[in-house]
Amino acid sequence: MHEITMFSGSAHRELAAAICHHLDIPLAPTRVTRFANDCLEVQLLANCRERDVYIVQPLAPPVQEHLVELLLMLDAARGASAARITVVMPHFAYARSDKKNAPRISIAARLMADLMQTAGADRVLTMTLHSPQVHGFFGVPVDHLHARHELAKHFRRGDLGNSVVVSPDLGYAKEAARFARLLGVPVAAAAKERLADDKVVISEIIGDVRGRDVVVLDDEIARGTTILELLDRLAEHDVASVRVACTHGLFTDGALARIGEREDVTEIVCTNTVPVHDADRASKLTVLSIAPALAEAVRRIHNGESVSVLFEQI
Amino acid sequence: MHEITMFSGSAHRELAAAICHHLDIPLAPTRVTRFANDCLEVQLLANCRERDVYIVQPLAPPVQEHLVELLLMLDAARGASAARITVVMPHFAYARSDKKNAPRISIAARLMADLMQTAGADRVLTMTLHSPQVHGFFGVPVDHLHARHELAKHFRRGDLGNSVVVSPDLGYAKEAARFARLLGVPVAAAAKERLADDKVVISEIIGDVRGRDVVVLDDEIARGTTILELLDRLAEHDVASVRVACTHGLFTDGALARIGEREDVTEIVCTNTVPVHDADRASKLTVLSIAPALAEAVRRIHNGESVSVLFEQI
Amino acid sequence: MHEITMFSGSAHRELAAAICHHLDIPLAPTRVTRFANDCLEVQLLANCRERDVYIVQPLAPPVQEHLVELLLMLDAARGASAARITVVMPHFAYARSDKKNAPRISIAARLMADLMQTAGADRVLTMTLHSPQVHGFFGVPVDHLHARHELAKHFRRGDLGNSVVVSPDLGYAKEAARFARLLGVPVAAAAKERLADDKVVISEIIGDVRGRDVVVLDDEIARGTTILELLDRLAEHDVASVRVACTHGLFTDGALARIGEREDVTEIVCTNTVPVHDADRASKLTVLSIAPALAEAVRRIHNGESVSVLFEQI
Amino acid sequence: MHEITMFSGSAHRELAAAICHHLDIPLAPTRVTRFANDCLEVQLLANCRERDVYIVQPLAPPVQEHLVELLLMLDAARGASAARITVVMPHFAYARSDKKNAPRISIAARLMADLMQTAGADRVLTMTLHSPQVHGFFGVPVDHLHARHELAKHFRRGDLGNSVVVSPDLGYAKEAARFARLLGVPVAAAAKERLADDKVVISEIIGDVRGRDVVVLDDEIARGTTILELLDRLAEHDVASVRVACTHGLFTDGALARIGEREDVTEIVCTNTVPVHDADRASKLTVLSIAPALAEAVRRIHNGESVSVLFEQI
Amino acid sequence: MHEITMFSGSAHRELAAAICHHLDIPLAPTRVTRFANDCLEVQLLANCRERDVYIVQPLAPPVQEHLVELLLMLDAARGASAARITVVMPHFAYARSDKKNAPRISIAARLMADLMQTAGADRVLTMTLHSPQVHGFFGVPVDHLHARHELAKHFRRGDLGNSVVVSPDLGYAKEAARFARLLGVPVAAAAKERLADDKVVISEIIGDVRGRDVVVLDDEIARGTTILELLDRLAEHDVASVRVACTHGLFTDGALARIGEREDVTEIVCTNTVPVHDADRASKLTVLSIAPALAEAVRRIHNGESVSVLFEQI
Amino acid sequence: MHEITMFSGSAHRELAAAICHHLDIPLAPTRVTRFANDCLEVQLLANCRERDVYIVQPLAPPVQEHLVELLLMLDAARGASAARITVVMPHFAYARSDKKNAPRISIAARLMADLMQTAGADRVLTMTLHSPQVHGFFGVPVDHLHARHELAKHFRRGDLGNSVVVSPDLGYAKEAARFARLLGVPVAAAAKERLADDKVVISEIIGDVRGRDVVVLDDEIARGTTILELLDRLAEHDVASVRVACTHGLFTDGALARIGEREDVTEIVCTNTVPVHDADRASKLTVLSIAPALAEAVRRIHNGESVSVLFEQI
Repeated sequence: MHEITMFSGSAHRELAAAICHHLDIPLAPTRVTRFANDCLEVQLLANCRERDVYIVQPLAPPVQEHLVELLLMLDAARGASAARITVVMPHFAYARSDKKNAPRISIAARLMADLMQTAGADRVLTMTLHSPQVHGFFGVPVDHLHARHELAKHFRRGDLGNSVVVSPDLGYAKEAARFARLLGVPVAAAAKERLADDKVVISEIIGDVRGRDVVVLDDEIARGTTILELLDRLAEHDVASVRVACTHGLFTDGALARIGEREDVTEIVCTNTVPVHDADRASKLTVLSIAPALAEAVRRIHNGESVSVLFEQI
Repeated sequence: MHEITMFSGSAHRELAAAICHHLDIPLAPTRVTRFANDCLEVQLLANCRERDVYIVQPLAPPVQEHLVELLLMLDAARGASAARITVVMPHFAYARSDKKNAPRISIAARLMADLMQTAGADRVLTMTLHSPQVHGFFGVPVDHLHARHELAKHFRRGDLGNSVVVSPDLGYAKEAARFARLLGVPVAAAAKERLADDKVVISEIIGDVRGRDVVVLDDEIARGTTILELLDRLAEHDVASVRVACTHGLFTDGALARIGEREDVTEIVCTNTVPVHDADRASKLTVLSIAPALAEAVRRIHNGESVSVLFEQI
Repeated sequence: MHEITMFSGSAHRELAAAICHHLDIPLAPTRVTRFANDCLEVQLLANCRERDVYIVQPLAPPVQEHLVELLLMLDAARGASAARITVVMPHFAYARSDKKNAPRISIAARLMADLMQTAGADRVLTMTLHSPQVHGFFGVPVDHLHARHELAKHFRRGDLGNSVVVSPDLGYAKEAARFARLLGVPVAAAAKERLADDKVVISEIIGDVRGRDVVVLDDEIARGTTILELLDRLAEHDVASVRVACTHGLFTDGALARIGEREDVTEIVCTNTVPVHDADRASKLTVLSIAPALAEAVRRIHNGESVSVLFEQI
Repeated sequence: MHEITMFSGSAHRELAAAICHHLDIPLAPTRVTRFANDCLEVQLLANCRERDVYIVQPLAPPVQEHLVELLLMLDAARGASAARITVVMPHFAYARSDKKNAPRISIAARLMADLMQTAGADRVLTMTLHSPQVHGFFGVPVDHLHARHELAKHFRRGDLGNSVVVSPDLGYAKEAARFARLLGVPVAAAAKERLADDKVVISEIIGDVRGRDVVVLDDEIARGTTILELLDRLAEHDVASVRVACTHGLFTDGALARIGEREDVTEIVCTNTVPVHDADRASKLTVLSIAPALAEAVRRIHNGESVSVLFEQI
Repeated sequence: MHEITMFSGSAHRELAAAICHHLDIPLAPTRVTRFANDCLEVQLLANCRERDVYIVQPLAPPVQEHLVELLLMLDAARGASAARITVVMPHFAYARSDKKNAPRISIAARLMADLMQTAGADRVLTMTLHSPQVHGFFGVPVDHLHARHELAKHFRRGDLGNSVVVSPDLGYAKEAARFARLLGVPVAAAAKERLADDKVVISEIIGDVRGRDVVVLDDEIARGTTILELLDRLAEHDVASVRVACTHGLFTDGALARIGEREDVTEIVCTNTVPVHDADRASKLTVLSIAPALAEAVRRIHNGESVSVLFEQI
Repeated sequence: MHEITMFSGSAHRELAAAICHHLDIPLAPTRVTRFANDCLEVQLLANCRERDVYIVQPLAPPVQEHLVELLLMLDAARGASAARITVVMPHFAYARSDKKNAPRISIAARLMADLMQTAGADRVLTMTLHSPQVHGFFGVPVDHLHARHELAKHFRRGDLGNSVVVSPDLGYAKEAARFARLLGVPVAAAAKERLADDKVVISEIIGDVRGRDVVVLDDEIARGTTILELLDRLAEHDVASVRVACTHGLFTDGALARIGEREDVTEIVCTNTVPVHDADRASKLTVLSIAPALAEAVRRIHNGESVSVLFEQI
């Protein structure tokens, strides 16, 4: 097979470098230009011809900038005669727009999948999609890794005898239950109710949490509004302690500080699918690296070895 | 706009006739031939040229026969110069195959959506998809109605003071919660665990059901294995009574009898998205007709009126 | 080139095994599940990544089941990152639906070709299509083998001095003439006339057959209605003997028995493009294996050697 | 529906004018420019916006010039926002390239169908395709008229008591038989044999022609080589008289003169799907006009009336 | 034809409102939501079903935000069953990326055209593309208006006896010459030379400008670097006065102030294809409205009248 | 990588042979047949299966014949299972039709690009496109070489002290300036004005040419009308001498003689992207071979080496 050439967009060069480090290959350079009229140009600064090209770009904020940058890189690689182009997108932010829950909106996750294919993506490597159905939005092969194994390994290190996994939303309860089984603990879930157009509250917690050590699990934490409200509800149920875990730790608008300053919260755990700012590292935050998992997946994709064994274990 | 011409495949002519009755139009005839080598031919026996064509075909068993028949009808209508072709598929059986939960399987719901588009479908009118994300598998516009309003209207007729809605699976808990809110009652959900490759058991019921009048809600009941096991678990929790509700009442392998003969089950409710056999009508079964809703949707699609108002009420 | 991985659908595992035997490779296993709602799931149980994948599936009855199974396997192989996917479909039953001989029907052979491409087929290997034009229905490369060489080799073993090849239909006369030239004998053909919508009779036999040893040639024999009527007509012309040959021996509805019990019929010859039931093997039937020819074609496709030399000989 | 706007390419303006005359609409003008580097430009000189556009262009010689001109007109009409574009192509010359009878050639009829679709054709109206399967090469709706009715009407005017229809090729025997049934006479066919790469001879005539009044039927006569050889063979069988009929009378390389000067040939009949030169009209030639049939088809296509009734009569 | 429904993205609501005013229709409302993870959602707040939908969105900065917003709106309108969707994009910023002037970059103008088509655009109405070839990047019909008529009308009001039109770049000289002919004056052009990777200088002015009243013409002015350098060069040639004209007046980074403060510059003229900030209006700036031209084009597109007459008038 | 197999159409076999000579491979044979009805058939006479196939065909006159021949060869190679198909088209004549400069014409360059892709082209290698934007008309990767280096090398051999490069059209001025910089001389350009529909005159020459040794540069010279008029204008400006250079020397209608017989013209230089007739070689014509450049590009494309280095050198 042709050699691997890996490029990184602007979204998360640190992660791309880590993946390359694990693969023992150099990260190929790119040059991003912003013209006076705000249009972007991305030049790939290494030969792509007949190469097995990988472009690392999670859709971290600013999402639109990173999305267009990714599309430009895909098109550039295709025009430069890449043999195969794989998008390495550990965080697919638009995956949350996976259904038409209001009239006349786009199911944006499907649209973005189509746009990437139009721009030249031959395949996608991604992590912890908001719902497993989003896989089916892509017309190209997808390797969908899941950070639940990294997260479970972390939590298994401590004593889980009195623990319960809590999903902040009924729609995520099934995934929380799968995670709970990995940890060998029970599961509970919060039910949300829409009071007004802009006002959602947690109406009840289904399942038993009183006196328990709670592990809250979500796929993504951004502003943290739901998590903070859940923490209030959990406090009312006299839980013993709370740890908060997610795959995609965006922590916008001071979310990390606001969650971290809660006394009942003993730890916040996320992975590095999106960049975590240095300042944040001093908090209660634990960041798990998914670079080894992505590197191993890339190695297997390149060599034609099975990737499913990676996410089937357990 | 061009006139409506409505055809029916073999899957559910009774429903097609009912829709036509509500629209006050004739059901256009078709001729299905099975050749000696088992290949099918479907001839549409009414002019399609520049017509607004609707083809009614839920994917009821035998699913493969009805699927291929549908694809042949779509292609025939396209070749016959239909102005627009809408699939009226109140039950999209393959919607349950919406994720890749084992390596090297097809996400069949996406595949079927692509096949219908290849065969000539311009749009789809469907009902209660297994998950709302399946909407995004289609590249053509979809009008996704939901039978929850018909079901809720039915249950609201009785006293719901002591009721709880129970989902047989955590993955359906969010929809069950939405239905519970329509009824103004709480929600609970069963958590399933996979013991071995072919053995799934309900490990716990999350939420409070003891002494309650339970309304079990699922999208589809086929062999009823999960429902029957849930009934056992509910009995252990000393529930007061059980009513079972679903949109798609396939009731294969004697499921209706087996559920109906349980003493704690007082009523089974479904809609006519798939045909219900006459013999079954003598049981505890109540069948709600969704023909009026489909007819109204067709009328609005044809006239260019908003369909979203239909499923946004409440 | 990547290694060959060959899977078989349910239609004809015996043939797939024979091809693999000739190629000296194992037949990769599959798992077919039929859900309670009659939907199918096919899991490919061997790594497909960057493999040269072949899926063996003639469209033998039940045709619709085998067709959908094939489409699911194609999509699964594509999603599993196969480097190239070849459909090995020795009998393409829908090839008979190759023209629009009634208004508002599908040209189903073209539709099926498009569906296979949508599902992921990169190329097709097939045998004795009903008409050579069907090749052009496919947008992907097709290798179209012909069993006439196997059949001719069989018949050349006996004395052909007094023989004539007879086509049961004028539309197949050209192919019959080609076969006759291979045997060095003259050709004749039956002309059919449509009396009513459901009644076709052989009105005349064009060419000289009196006193001859007749070899009837057709591409496919299913219910055998035409052949049986032709046998009546031939008897009226006092032919000396009759042998019946075809590529695709479906023999449905007791066709084999009904043809075999005719005293003037001395032999029935077909190939194993579709399964022949063991019970049938005791009759006058001779089954020629096309597994060696298919295996050799697969070997050449895989190695990038010319396949045309296979069907150009003679 | 939007108004009809009909344009003509250079291939057969006379026919386009005749169709317009029957439809009582003006023929919209075009301007064809040939640049110094031999590239063509075609400008449509009437507004196409939201019009129902028809482009008349049989693929008469010079075929390549007329094909490219047609593609340029299609693209121009699409770019000019036509509501729908129908190719009126009474002679699709490339339809004869409908199978792969040599390795590494294009099935050009399928390719041309794809090219027209790429250039913007929404539908096709054509006449007497070389084989009915060619219909299936098009991905867009095709209305396939047949001149056999016009031809039959002509021949039925005379005494057919002693007549026989003869096909010059076994591959056309089925169509000849259909024509013979229209006339109520028997059918015969010539069998061709390939002696060397460039040498094909008629090896035998299958069916009874001796002493008969022969009507030779072919779809297209170009250089007339096959017809002339058939005339020699027919003479050897002492036929009483010969009339030659075809739909597409190209008559290249003096074919008309060479056939017409045979004493046994009493009449040559064709239609005006391709232009017939004035000089030729003085010969034994009878030219039937298919302009009324095409005009009626256009009228029905435009009005959304059934076209199938046109070619189903008889 | 179906009614017009016009929506506006965030880029230039003022222009959309002006177009609607000229068409005497209301501007349909939209709701833009930015989720906590920075993803956008746009809801169209008026029924689109079978409507002739127009979406107004010039690609003004922030370009990436406005581009993604546009794609989301297109997809939403398509999913909402719009009969036809026209992008009204008076400034297509990415049109400047129209060639591959460095290895391994995207020809972004083509990519953006493909993305819009993927998202659902049926046609495009745009103004003064950077080069006329960009029209050909679109696979859908484009109506390409040109502001040169509005600009010429403005300049013809004054005395042009001593004037010359100057293009700041040889690549724009042909368009400048066309504009000069409209004004009846001669043309000149600056030639640029690349000194280093990031350093381009105007090496010479080709044509006679000394003592002349100069009208500098460009398609777009953003940071104004080239214009400012050209002003320096023109000063060296002792021109009498300078007026600066462009279609797309982006004026980023204080360009307007820096150009306006030059004493030799007497007027700056642009159109409102992109928003002009109120503060800027007090300067030497004259803003011409292209809303009437766009409204007239929309009216003609909707009614199926010729649009070419709009831009063909000298 | 798979081996190279190179075929040539009829347009320029001499060039194809020269490229093969430089690559040290044989030119694979083809067989072109013209049927009696003027349709073409091209058979590729070497195995294409899994080969890296190159088809050499500049669009020299007769353009339509060569275009259709090319499309047939592409489709044949695809159907014959080529691994990759590259069009080597050193002269893309239709590139001149790159904009819509009249209503209701095709942007033919885009159409031709789409047609080649439909027929099976995977990539294109071309030379000196009329405008660089034409690159973006292709949906497949394009390697766009430029003959300016060959031309510059030729002119640099002489004394350029008093020289100026003149573009015959303002639209080509930018390219002329780039060429002038390669030679280290100034640039000038002619401005054309359209007097009537069929009458274009050079209205002025912008830039200083008096007394200079002029090098006229154009991409293509066909009938030479513009060049001859430019020569008249240059004579009026008392230029010292003239040399005429172009990449594509079509020289139709005696252009070479008419330019060559001008006394002020001392040399005419072109390349062999299109065939130059032997008779012409006796004139003032110098023909530079671009076979080495094309061969080197093919070698690099085949080996996956960077092609951009070829055209980036100055």
